[in-house]
Amino acid sequence: MRPRYTGIVPPLITPLAARDTLDVAGLERLVERLVAGGVSGLFILGTTGEAPSLSYRLRREFIGRACRFVAGRIPVLVGITDTSLVESANLAAHAADCGADAVVTSAPYYFPSGQPELREFLEDLLPELPLPLMLYNMPALTKTSFSAEVVSWALQQERIAGLKDSSGDLVYFRRMRRLAATQRPDWSFLVGPEELLAESVLLGGHGGINGGANLHPALYVSLYEAAKAGDVSRARELSEQVMNLSEAIYHVGRHGSAIIKGLKCSLSILGVCDDFMAAPFHRFQEAERRVIAQHLETLGIAR
Amino acid sequence: MRPRYTGIVPPLITPLAARDTLDVAGLERLVERLVAGGVSGLFILGTTGEAPSLSYRLRREFIGRACRFVAGRIPVLVGITDTSLVESANLAAHAADCGADAVVTSAPYYFPSGQPELREFLEDLLPELPLPLMLYNMPALTKTSFSAEVVSWALQQERIAGLKDSSGDLVYFRRMRRLAATQRPDWSFLVGPEELLAESVLLGGHGGINGGANLHPALYVSLYEAAKAGDVSRARELSEQVMNLSEAIYHVGRHGSAIIKGLKCSLSILGVCDDFMAAPFHRFQEAERRVIAQHLETLGIAR
Amino acid sequence: MRPRYTGIVPPLITPLAARDTLDVAGLERLVERLVAGGVSGLFILGTTGEAPSLSYRLRREFIGRACRFVAGRIPVLVGITDTSLVESANLAAHAADCGADAVVTSAPYYFPSGQPELREFLEDLLPELPLPLMLYNMPALTKTSFSAEVVSWALQQERIAGLKDSSGDLVYFRRMRRLAATQRPDWSFLVGPEELLAESVLLGGHGGINGGANLHPALYVSLYEAAKAGDVSRARELSEQVMNLSEAIYHVGRHGSAIIKGLKCSLSILGVCDDFMAAPFHRFQEAERRVIAQHLETLGIAR
Amino acid sequence: MRPRYTGIVPPLITPLAARDTLDVAGLERLVERLVAGGVSGLFILGTTGEAPSLSYRLRREFIGRACRFVAGRIPVLVGITDTSLVESANLAAHAADCGADAVVTSAPYYFPSGQPELREFLEDLLPELPLPLMLYNMPALTKTSFSAEVVSWALQQERIAGLKDSSGDLVYFRRMRRLAATQRPDWSFLVGPEELLAESVLLGGHGGINGGANLHPALYVSLYEAAKAGDVSRARELSEQVMNLSEAIYHVGRHGSAIIKGLKCSLSILGVCDDFMAAPFHRFQEAERRVIAQHLETLGIAR
Repeated sequence: MRPRYTGIVPPLITPLAARDTLDVAGLERLVERLVAGGVSGLFILGTTGEAPSLSYRLRREFIGRACRFVAGRIPVLVGITDTSLVESANLAAHAADCGADAVVTSAPYYFPSGQPELREFLEDLLPELPLPLMLYNMPALTKTSFSAEVVSWALQQERIAGLKDSSGDLVYFRRMRRLAATQRPDWSFLVGPEELLAESVLLGGHGGINGGANLHPALYVSLYEAAKAGDVSRARELSEQVMNLSEAIYHVGRHGSAIIKGLKCSLSILGVCDDFMAAPFHRFQEAERRVIAQHLETLGIAR
Repeated sequence: MRPRYTGIVPPLITPLAARDTLDVAGLERLVERLVAGGVSGLFILGTTGEAPSLSYRLRREFIGRACRFVAGRIPVLVGITDTSLVESANLAAHAADCGADAVVTSAPYYFPSGQPELREFLEDLLPELPLPLMLYNMPALTKTSFSAEVVSWALQQERIAGLKDSSGDLVYFRRMRRLAATQRPDWSFLVGPEELLAESVLLGGHGGINGGANLHPALYVSLYEAAKAGDVSRARELSEQVMNLSEAIYHVGRHGSAIIKGLKCSLSILGVCDDFMAAPFHRFQEAERRVIAQHLETLGIAR
Repeated sequence: MRPRYTGIVPPLITPLAARDTLDVAGLERLVERLVAGGVSGLFILGTTGEAPSLSYRLRREFIGRACRFVAGRIPVLVGITDTSLVESANLAAHAADCGADAVVTSAPYYFPSGQPELREFLEDLLPELPLPLMLYNMPALTKTSFSAEVVSWALQQERIAGLKDSSGDLVYFRRMRRLAATQRPDWSFLVGPEELLAESVLLGGHGGINGGANLHPALYVSLYEAAKAGDVSRARELSEQVMNLSEAIYHVGRHGSAIIKGLKCSLSILGVCDDFMAAPFHRFQEAERRVIAQHLETLGIAR
Repeated sequence: MRPRYTGIVPPLITPLAARDTLDVAGLERLVERLVAGGVSGLFILGTTGEAPSLSYRLRREFIGRACRFVAGRIPVLVGITDTSLVESANLAAHAADCGADAVVTSAPYYFPSGQPELREFLEDLLPELPLPLMLYNMPALTKTSFSAEVVSWALQQERIAGLKDSSGDLVYFRRMRRLAATQRPDWSFLVGPEELLAESVLLGGHGGINGGANLHPALYVSLYEAAKAGDVSRARELSEQVMNLSEAIYHVGRHGSAIIKGLKCSLSILGVCDDFMAAPFHRFQEAERRVIAQHLETLGIAR
């Protein structure tokens, strides 16, 4: 039994042309860019995809179009994280209809749940899902981490396929991997922050769901391959390039939204897709756009 | 110019018969109970109403039914807090169609916004709203407080009618009231935590959006009246009764959900409505229910 | 049995002439100013007194001099909060030798303690103390609040005399007062944030340990008296003056240190004492000093 | 220019025989055990050493004895973290007198400082120090992280020799290393959490200040050597052993103190030193001690 998902699975940004309007042509270009870059799958409607900021109508449209553009070449994972179990289940059904491969959920994020409540939530949700489920640990935004107790329970659920960890806490990542080691060799452990991709894969992680792969998929794929092969010096070198990208693109804005804004702005400069942002955010203004453009040139990232 | 909302405006719990199913008869009994108890308005689809846990379909049904049951006897305020501006606007349009009096929003609660982003969000949202808007400060759950700068901007918007503050921080409450004092005598400042109703009204606040008023509306209305009249000794005495209710009903469960569970369980024991909870929560089990029942007896709360 | 401490007990700023050097003459002027202003006691070496930033040598000197200047006219309470129980006990012994009336401790503030650990800490400390002990709840700086369980234990200790609460959370304040109500009518409940003095005393609190009383003791004493007497309209009016002082003096700097800097700068402008700050802080620069001077004039605060 | 400190520098626990009493013989045994285990230096009076809980008298005695026992075989780094600059400087002077190699400070930890204030604090402290200074990033306990701006300033100070990072955030660790890369090849970057030793050294970190090295120094030294040599498979294997130790020894107690309690209890079982804890903590009781004893056997850790 091997992990279902390995390698680089970019968390797709959601190309928007206007409020509640997809940039359909941009989405197609983005999908082609990533498939050509060698990624192992796509994760749509995650944090980087601004999912909670999108209407359900647009989310459904996006799922349909993304699956059609991918056309089975790589698996599509669909974020169904929500505050309402009913809406999560609705999205999951639609994802299955569209041919997605799995769904992904974090903890419900308005009310902070106690750990027993979080487990009950997963117990209630699981029977509603027509597709395998990946857990998505994102405590900074959901207020709740999946505890060792909840993960131990999840390891006993055949329908749960792994954990994406965006906590930035590699101690947590390792503790969870250790829990699964003997029981579930088929679980996938994917790391969120791209600055930790080298470290986590060198120590046995299975890959990354890294925002920067929207921009430069081949870099992340190469880094993953080097780390998987145990080639430390190449992993260090490529990881340094990832650090360069991260420093250049993610710290231009002042707020937490700077990462998504930086990615969308970059993709717009590269001609891939529009950089319209869903509320409560707005695209970078001209001054920041110029800074990003210079950084892209320095980084040598082009169409 | 006087504040649009004063007195007790209970944040309605949402009576559910099952997942995604309203307890319609329970809702009608609850509305009648509150109107009979002398409340000044109803706030539906807030935190106490488990709004983020409900499907949009159910939220729309609930708005319609609540407005029909109230039938114009008191104003109905509708929570439209969401992570998606588009869904907020959709709910607001429906609320207007149903005859609601105002809508209420907190900050979008998945992504933490910077204060300039929060102001832009309100700028974007306001033109979409067919009804006056109350701000709802709930930083523990939304991660963001409305800063003095954002409130100062809001004071210049005619369509914004006031602030409900559930931060529990009366220093904040007073600072915001002070900002509004000369500029907007028509703004309503309502306090969330019922344990602070006496304090805030004695010092000039306009009322409370207090969960316990679901259970014992007359107590909260009397306390409000005493505090408004400056009757300190009666306010102290009634406020002590509110403390008794709070200690007895809100601390039976172990997690943050204990307050809503306690309220729903109490209303179920009193025969008002079902205590079904939306995921991720579940109703109290038999043991906790017995504790609540004893406490209701001690408190002398009956149908 | 009546509470040991009531009314206004200013948390003395520590007048410094230079690093590790008291401004002795300034201290004497300050003490006289406060005694003349009608305060009920002095709390030295608290947060406002920058106690953790001072050397032990200076703390001991300060205790001695403050007690001598006060000369028994009002009680002196001495902060012994520390991360080391041994140093707390040393300070307490010195405070007793100098004729202080009580000592005050918060939770040890480097390691966050579990509540059972916090209770054990108090159990270990209490026998070392030659004076009565006030608890000082300051979770923002100590990471730990005294829980209801710990306070319930403390209520059984004759040597513990009350609670100063600087959490800013009046719900907590009321819950703790309620615990003590029947058991310990002699406990003192004093509130830290001066913006809540009116509210807390109107509802039955016993007074305030309010930084602004360093600057304008008579205002705080009058407000306390009005609130105690149940004179709501006068309490509102005086409380509004406290809000004015707070807005004008505490928000000139950008960091948490702005309150102490504002107080020391004001006292320096008024000619009471030097505004030297202990590291890690520095006194306001000329620009901020001018702003404070204007605000003092607007507020009508003079020598 | 090479980093001044590399390899494993255990943060020494402080062996205590009773309150304010060193276990001198235990300290000697512990020092010999660690020197024999191949460590590169000792860090005394850090968090693991319970420094903030110790009296200044005992800290001074401890510095003297530790330096004498080490007798120049390896460098001794002395924690001088304090809330009072004057006391930090006093300790540093004593450390120099005793022949220590460097001093270590985190941010002052009672008042949260703004970043400009933190830089000023270091500017004020540095001239008082007769020894080189290592920065110690420990935001969970000090409330403040050394920002990129402050670290950039520190890189220009010849007397500052590196950074120990106990944040658990490897993204931060890498960002700071990157800042130093060209400017200060002589800076040491040492990681706190032992569960991240393999990851950080594989990517270019210089070693670890890891509590578990008190217990099993050779394991940590071997892991460091393997990671430094780029031997991924051996690093993985040894890192797994570190995870086993961490899971077995650090999670027996319920509070944050469980790590230090587990280490001291283990060393007591092994006959190295007493497990007396400074207030506010207490040693494990018999039940927990038995669990630790079993775990030590399973782990194969013996005298």
